[in-house]
Amino acid sequence: MTESPSTAQPAFILVRPQMGENIGAAARAMWNFGLDRMRVIAPRDGWPNERAVALASGAGRLLDHAGLHEDVAAAISDCTYVFATTARPRGMTMPVVTPERAMQQARAILAEGGRVGVLFGPERAGLENDDIARANAIISVPVNPDFPSLNLAQCVLLCAYEFRRAGDATPPEVMEMAGTDFATGAEVAALGDHMEARLEEAGFFFPPDKAESMRRNLRQVWGRLPLTRADVQTFHGILRQMVRWAEGRRKDL
Amino acid sequence: MTESPSTAQPAFILVRPQMGENIGAAARAMWNFGLDRMRVIAPRDGWPNERAVALASGAGRLLDHAGLHEDVAAAISDCTYVFATTARPRGMTMPVVTPERAMQQARAILAEGGRVGVLFGPERAGLENDDIARANAIISVPVNPDFPSLNLAQCVLLCAYEFRRAGDATPPEVMEMAGTDFATGAEVAALGDHMEARLEEAGFFFPPDKAESMRRNLRQVWGRLPLTRADVQTFHGILRQMVRWAEGRRKDL
Repeated sequence: MTESPSTAQPAFILVRPQMGENIGAAARAMWNFGLDRMRVIAPRDGWPNERAVALASGAGRLLDHAGLHEDVAAAISDCTYVFATTARPRGMTMPVVTPERAMQQARAILAEGGRVGVLFGPERAGLENDDIARANAIISVPVNPDFPSLNLAQCVLLCAYEFRRAGDATPPEVMEMAGTDFATGAEVAALGDHMEARLEEAGFFFPPDKAESMRRNLRQVWGRLPLTRADVQTFHGILRQMVRWAEGRRKDL
Repeated sequence: MTESPSTAQPAFILVRPQMGENIGAAARAMWNFGLDRMRVIAPRDGWPNERAVALASGAGRLLDHAGLHEDVAAAISDCTYVFATTARPRGMTMPVVTPERAMQQARAILAEGGRVGVLFGPERAGLENDDIARANAIISVPVNPDFPSLNLAQCVLLCAYEFRRAGDATPPEVMEMAGTDFATGAEVAALGDHMEARLEEAGFFFPPDKAESMRRNLRQVWGRLPLTRADVQTFHGILRQMVRWAEGRRKDL
């Protein structure tokens, strides 16, 4: 039963999808975030669907292994918890959760051995109330109320993204060092001294009564910049070249 | 200058986009999450672009007001902080942040009066290193490394979604009550008593040595269920109808 939701990931269940293109795009969106358990309920244009296969390029395996079901009851029969995605409230007494919270809950249910399904409605009208009544909670994406029209593959993408994010160890920020390290304080101070000495020769610290504050400002700049060793070497090289250039000019005069 | 990034939202900058369809889909994705400051750099098929307009349906205003620029330098000239979206590391010494962290930072910069730009590369190859070198940080979406191929509109969608989420007051979970309230403890207890009395008459608590634990279990069930007042009324009605039905059957015998 390759289409069974595992205890590692939810099954994404497309309810009566209309366009093969959207089924294919949904498969790609799932696989972009590592999900590969798809179920399809009564697709309008039959199954398998050529347009779906064409659009799924690279994620066709999901369609090959997708479970085909007649109705929602059959598609969720082995699920212990079911989310229904809707664009608008439906007047039912149910928890309404953000995609983020829903996929955190899905991770927690799966971790305890449960099986999770997520229902996505047909393109035009979305899920019917009878479909939603079989779910345990509603997922509502916090969209712009003036333009709430997310398409099927976009809704799948956001849920898949949030599922991955809920279990993701990616640090929110890393510094890509590109083969170098940050310079030490001593290295940065030596660069500051080097520059200060050359600028002294160049007559930069003028007028004399401003010189001390100019020096102090410059030292603060160096301390504030996150310079790498490669940067420090670059600046030393620049200073040496400026000196050579100035000496050459002086000879020319 | 309608295309200027305001201090309320970042400008999303499409760098040398190829397909008009993707420009239109990007506009829709932005507007789904309330963003409407788009800039376009050297679109392959000229500007304005018919296919973009057709695909942007509902978000065409973004294209009408989009700023058209010759190169990245011109497009970001008024930005104080620029993010570049890339699918893979580029060997540059730069912070690499998730979309979530990036859009939190964008909110913070905007709140201090800064202006933020986000660069999105052309469909096929993504941003060139020369483009990225003009940015302050890289946004990298944590995708499935076996299938990292997000398209342009999807990348725009995720960043727009995260920007909205970073400033969103939507509670992660609300209980949609559909015009009713949760029942009080007394109402639930009264329902339990009602059912227990009818079940007593119906001979449910059998055998006698199990009766007490059966009653206790049943009371625990009621206490565990989050019943609304409407639910409680429904169950009272069910009990009354079961009694009528049983009385009718007894007369028939």
